[in-house]
Amino acid sequence: MNFIDKDFAVLKINPARLLADLRHLRTFGATGPGVVRLSLSPVDMDARHWLVSRMNDAGLSATIDGVGNVFGRSRNAGPALLIGSHTDTQPTGGWLDGALGVIYGLEIARALAECEATRDFAVDVASWIDEEGTFAGFLGSRSFVGEHVDDAVRGARNREGVLLGDALRQAGLTGTPRVHIDRTRHKAYLEPHIEQGGRLEANGKSIGVVTTIVGIRELKLRFTGQRNHAGTTPMSIRRDAGAALVAFIARMDQAFRRIADADTVWTVGRIELDPGSFSVVPGAADLYLQYRDASAHRLRAMDAALAALVRDFNAEGKIGVAVTDSEPPEQPVQMDAALQTHLADAADALAPGQWERMPSGASHDAQVIAHHVPACMLFVPSIGGVSHDFIEDTAEAHIVLGCEVAAHAAANILRGLRD
Amino acid sequence: MNFIDKDFAVLKINPARLLADLRHLRTFGATGPGVVRLSLSPVDMDARHWLVSRMNDAGLSATIDGVGNVFGRSRNAGPALLIGSHTDTQPTGGWLDGALGVIYGLEIARALAECEATRDFAVDVASWIDEEGTFAGFLGSRSFVGEHVDDAVRGARNREGVLLGDALRQAGLTGTPRVHIDRTRHKAYLEPHIEQGGRLEANGKSIGVVTTIVGIRELKLRFTGQRNHAGTTPMSIRRDAGAALVAFIARMDQAFRRIADADTVWTVGRIELDPGSFSVVPGAADLYLQYRDASAHRLRAMDAALAALVRDFNAEGKIGVAVTDSEPPEQPVQMDAALQTHLADAADALAPGQWERMPSGASHDAQVIAHHVPACMLFVPSIGGVSHDFIEDTAEAHIVLGCEVAAHAAANILRGLRD
Repeated sequence: MNFIDKDFAVLKINPARLLADLRHLRTFGATGPGVVRLSLSPVDMDARHWLVSRMNDAGLSATIDGVGNVFGRSRNAGPALLIGSHTDTQPTGGWLDGALGVIYGLEIARALAECEATRDFAVDVASWIDEEGTFAGFLGSRSFVGEHVDDAVRGARNREGVLLGDALRQAGLTGTPRVHIDRTRHKAYLEPHIEQGGRLEANGKSIGVVTTIVGIRELKLRFTGQRNHAGTTPMSIRRDAGAALVAFIARMDQAFRRIADADTVWTVGRIELDPGSFSVVPGAADLYLQYRDASAHRLRAMDAALAALVRDFNAEGKIGVAVTDSEPPEQPVQMDAALQTHLADAADALAPGQWERMPSGASHDAQVIAHHVPACMLFVPSIGGVSHDFIEDTAEAHIVLGCEVAAHAAANILRGLRD
Repeated sequence: MNFIDKDFAVLKINPARLLADLRHLRTFGATGPGVVRLSLSPVDMDARHWLVSRMNDAGLSATIDGVGNVFGRSRNAGPALLIGSHTDTQPTGGWLDGALGVIYGLEIARALAECEATRDFAVDVASWIDEEGTFAGFLGSRSFVGEHVDDAVRGARNREGVLLGDALRQAGLTGTPRVHIDRTRHKAYLEPHIEQGGRLEANGKSIGVVTTIVGIRELKLRFTGQRNHAGTTPMSIRRDAGAALVAFIARMDQAFRRIADADTVWTVGRIELDPGSFSVVPGAADLYLQYRDASAHRLRAMDAALAALVRDFNAEGKIGVAVTDSEPPEQPVQMDAALQTHLADAADALAPGQWERMPSGASHDAQVIAHHVPACMLFVPSIGGVSHDFIEDTAEAHIVLGCEVAAHAAANILRGLRD
């Protein structure tokens, strides 16, 4: 449908207000063009308190919950559309990663309240704590859907060794209740986000409608050979664990290329040779491997190809290879088809020919929430595909367009839920 | 010549005394089967003081010099054969590495003094400080031949950050004179040593006569690509510095294999990917490369092959490669042909069919001294080829045989010098 639904023709977001709020949020932890706003840090808590006041100004009933989530509840009766993302950042974070989706939610709640046709619609808005995993990744969304997070609260530490429980105490949140999903109210979840990749830009598109959040494998492969003097050990009798690792990567690349489609990715992010000196033939070598794909079937094929390579290597006998999961495997998570259609319809109306469906190669709170509530995601382009970096940015026109598409999709989603 | 020279038929080392001294030296810094006796540490200085007393007992005139060398000067007039090695160890050292050659020197000085035919022969014995480079590699032999070591004394530090100058002060050596080469006296140098490799053992031999100490290159190659999100960056547009490093190694291996002979070695001892996390496509990658060969010509061919690969890689343009020397190139050092013949003759007499000529793949003080005095080296087998490890060892029969061969070679060398 290549037009705005007539009921919502007058639904308008306020671009100046949207951009002003994004820019104000950027000031909390601003570092050059980037932002350093780690979960539960003083500057992160300042940002959360500011966000609570902006939500209350917008007519929501906002609080910071017992794990640090900011939750702004609409005073309207449900069914409610929940819009959320995160306002914490990476250690070298960009200004829009996460922040964009939260402020979209705030602006959409305001825009719907200001529009005759939608003023009774309920939009709840959330900033989930610690999506970036300063202490424990997805802590806020996991707590919200009822996953068991007490172990993390007791045991998780940040890089400085601070316990999450102590950080929550310092933030003044001890004894504060946690906000949980209300299954009679929360009927749909929308997470707008920057793409964090270069695909939309490369294809000349302005909006991405996410089909799937990819599954992830994170494995550590340890190669065990024999440590030896690098001067006195002839090549012919070496059992060089590092050389074996390098040879393994070549064979793995070949095997994965046979299985991959254009969106399959695999990455060797770290290599450690032991003992790691010029003069010693490495006796052990560690390979840190991650691969991601939107298809559970393809991931299983990659698992099998890798296992076969490991078997072959061990059968050759010269160098041993052992594989351990560094993280439990994450399965791909499908976005809800009906919600995708609402996003696609709004994109088609407001940005005809400028949008496409795509997987999300990155992880998001949506993958936690999708197991409990139908969920969808909308992407706006990242300039140069850059994220998790101070220079991450998105064109202002794309920021505004993304919010307009999300707002109209939200209105249609809510009308559907209320029918 | 397959017999002992009749003049020296009665020259006998004392195996029990040799082994007792080696075992006593082992007690300084004993750690399980190994030894931790880092240069100028309290335990190393205790060992040096003990060695001085054993040298004096043997009739030498022994001192510790201003950099820590133990030097035992024969009271006989020159020409003198200098026999030396080192009694310092690696952080996880073996009991014979270096110690063997020093105690051989002590035992040979005693054995020659006890034999009618050789009692006037002059053998000076040295334990060179810091061959292993706790502060500055080859410090003692470099100081002895007159190289400029004052900068090292002022600026070199150990891993704990202690300045060499302070360590010398703590060892009580400040103001002590340094011993220097006496070119009218020191006419030949012999360094007996454990092989530190597995070649003699693999070939069923008991003695190695060293032809050359190999040359060494130590280089660091830095690959520069583009850091990116490992989930959202398609394989097709990545500039993965780590993947480029792995591909480079494969091409380098191929190029080096075309140039190498059976003794050429090259080692990738360390790989560092930046930032080194599962989720980030490496933007930079460092490769630590060492290669060694006995032929200066072949080393230059390897230098050229590597430079061509780097040029090709940079010409392809996707990933930049920059090469820096980590250490100045070391050229191969030939052992003196006449001295080699003396060792070979003695080996042939005492261990017929059980010896072979071979390069030294490891570095030794002999390479410093050979630029000033004709030098030679004799190897005994290392069990399993292991060195720089607590479990390093040599069969007792090989320890004794090596000393017998060295003693007879020493007698013949000295007779030649005195003629």
